[in-house]
Amino acid sequence: MFDIQEIRSQFSILNQEVNGKPLVYLDNAATSQKPNSVLEVWNGYYTEINANVHRGIHTLSQLATEEMELSRRKIQKFINAKHDFEVIFTKGTTEGLNLIAYILTQKLKKDDEIIISYLEHHSNIVPWQMLCERTGAKLRVIPMDENGILQLDVFETFLSEKTKVVSVNQVSNALGIVNPIEEIIAKTRKNTDAYIVIDGAQSAPHFIIDVQKMDCDFFVFSGHKMYAPMGTGILYGKQVILEDLPPFHGGGEMIATCSFDGTTYAGLPFKYEAGTPNVGGNIALGAAVDFIQKVGQENIQNHENALLEYAQRKLLELEGIKIYGEKAVRTGVVSFNLEGVGIASDVGMILDKLGIAVRTGHHCTQPIMDFFNIAGTVRASFALYNTFNEIDLLIEGVKKAQRMLS
Amino acid sequence: MFDIQEIRSQFSILNQEVNGKPLVYLDNAATSQKPNSVLEVWNGYYTEINANVHRGIHTLSQLATEEMELSRRKIQKFINAKHDFEVIFTKGTTEGLNLIAYILTQKLKKDDEIIISYLEHHSNIVPWQMLCERTGAKLRVIPMDENGILQLDVFETFLSEKTKVVSVNQVSNALGIVNPIEEIIAKTRKNTDAYIVIDGAQSAPHFIIDVQKMDCDFFVFSGHKMYAPMGTGILYGKQVILEDLPPFHGGGEMIATCSFDGTTYAGLPFKYEAGTPNVGGNIALGAAVDFIQKVGQENIQNHENALLEYAQRKLLELEGIKIYGEKAVRTGVVSFNLEGVGIASDVGMILDKLGIAVRTGHHCTQPIMDFFNIAGTVRASFALYNTFNEIDLLIEGVKKAQRMLS
Repeated sequence: MFDIQEIRSQFSILNQEVNGKPLVYLDNAATSQKPNSVLEVWNGYYTEINANVHRGIHTLSQLATEEMELSRRKIQKFINAKHDFEVIFTKGTTEGLNLIAYILTQKLKKDDEIIISYLEHHSNIVPWQMLCERTGAKLRVIPMDENGILQLDVFETFLSEKTKVVSVNQVSNALGIVNPIEEIIAKTRKNTDAYIVIDGAQSAPHFIIDVQKMDCDFFVFSGHKMYAPMGTGILYGKQVILEDLPPFHGGGEMIATCSFDGTTYAGLPFKYEAGTPNVGGNIALGAAVDFIQKVGQENIQNHENALLEYAQRKLLELEGIKIYGEKAVRTGVVSFNLEGVGIASDVGMILDKLGIAVRTGHHCTQPIMDFFNIAGTVRASFALYNTFNEIDLLIEGVKKAQRMLS
Repeated sequence: MFDIQEIRSQFSILNQEVNGKPLVYLDNAATSQKPNSVLEVWNGYYTEINANVHRGIHTLSQLATEEMELSRRKIQKFINAKHDFEVIFTKGTTEGLNLIAYILTQKLKKDDEIIISYLEHHSNIVPWQMLCERTGAKLRVIPMDENGILQLDVFETFLSEKTKVVSVNQVSNALGIVNPIEEIIAKTRKNTDAYIVIDGAQSAPHFIIDVQKMDCDFFVFSGHKMYAPMGTGILYGKQVILEDLPPFHGGGEMIATCSFDGTTYAGLPFKYEAGTPNVGGNIALGAAVDFIQKVGQENIQNHENALLEYAQRKLLELEGIKIYGEKAVRTGVVSFNLEGVGIASDVGMILDKLGIAVRTGHHCTQPIMDFFNIAGTVRASFALYNTFNEIDLLIEGVKKAQRMLS
């Protein structure tokens, strides 16, 4: 049972007017809204058991620790990690990617190669550029065709003993394109010993994730794009790899012994969790997993795919709409422009006056924009609470923008 | 007017029983509880305006951005920073200290010196040890006497052209000792060009902070110890220094332009805020500042000092109590052991059965424990909502522990 009105009733924020019109929230790839159940868990934490974790023997501290570790196990199951200690709490995808790029520093040397794709978010470009600066390694970029489809034949020619890292997203945030990570991982494993990093920021909210089946070394995602509060995220890393690599932040919780002469580090997951964690947020992330699983991941995927298909069909019925990645396999996102009539931000402003929230601009993917020789796109992105009626309102808004701007 | 019952009524969590006894929460140096006003602001954010910030032109995104930037200005005033863009949102003190140690990497070379004190938390030790490993720099430690008072005459002999960083806390988390940072900063400025870092995790909740008057280069603190949610914190850095140093995390928000050939970085504060910030948490941190200022910082300080004085006097009336740092100037913390009768954790467990939450162990300060040749202490730490009656209950509990363990 997928009762959209029942689902929407769990998101108080959706029940409001913006600029005198009912809010149509289509900016879910930037951040999703949070169901009441998640907010209640967070509040319950702060009104009942808030305490610092792990280091305390008093009752509240023990309860807080138990709840956070329970949440870790929920997330372990959600991504099918082999061990709960392979699940590291972070503040989000960006921190996860930077953490990985940082702890790999000693593993790379001059002229080694890091492969990313043309479809990456800045957060999966800049940390590797910074790693290249530190080590003298070189960045190689899997090219894409005019549909935004990655050219795996070219990728294959990149692979060599110089390849030390392959880091790609599972779903492009700017275009919604689903990348062939199974093939990318298989080819990488076959030809190299490279570390494989998957940016799951845009896939974890939509797909069933199985990191063991995927056989990646790292998988990172954010809580706030999957119905959990901001300031939460997950770094999954394979045990053998996390045990081999050095820590990231130094501080409390991550040491075994500390003296001025030298410090030894704690085991997983604490080695990578220096400092007071976001206990309330981490517990709420577990509640977001509960929410997703209660609705049903297949239900979510089917609904979101139907929304995307409908939106794309309706947009293409209009004249002069350019959809980027139109012919690629996509999920959750339609990214488009009104050809010849104004810039994306003008369209966004007109839609906002109608209560419709979309994102416009480069979506933190300037290389993709440069590829298409545009400043930005209008991006509508979907979550489980969006409706076909909202797509109709979007289409009406786009028509109005066409009239106003032409 | 400082009406303790009115204040306590704002903290729902305090109104509960633990192990059949009214909760006495004396673990505030680990984390403070949150007033309803802070939780309401956080909830209001998620039920009314939640959106990703800065990059959106739709109404919710603009409202979220305005609220977060308003919070930044509240914090600017709270610490008297010269500019709002000198206030960087982090996830807490540990991240702030690691960020600083990381971005200073290129500024240090072999045999340069980093000075910390004996009284530091692991989070102000380990990041510098890691920086020493990266650069070949050396760590020097300001010694303390048997009262936990830092020996500034020895510190002065450390200062030379080799001194590149001086990083000390304003208040010791383990013992509550207030360090003479004014003198430390003055002596450092007089004799060196070193970067001066102040760990304010344990001072920001208790003191009026003025970073300009203090004349530090960096000041870091956590939200969760000062009535804000976990996963929030602040790095203050002087404009000229933050502009000179490289970024920490790469990703969205922190770039000016990004291409595969090279990336340029955004101005402050965004250069240091890669990725989606904890918008709800950051806004709630502003609400915590409002709460503190409404109660009145002088009122808070007077009340907490009176609690500490009372607790210390009452503890010293008992036989066989050793208070660490007894003769030092302290705030908010009394750290002690029951001489000859059991270990700290046994005392903590007995107190917990009486509903009294204290922290026991090394408090992430193993060097201090080694100095006193102990495994840990019992630490009672105070916040503005604690009462003299709670101190009486603590004293009764300690007496009971003495009886049970002797």
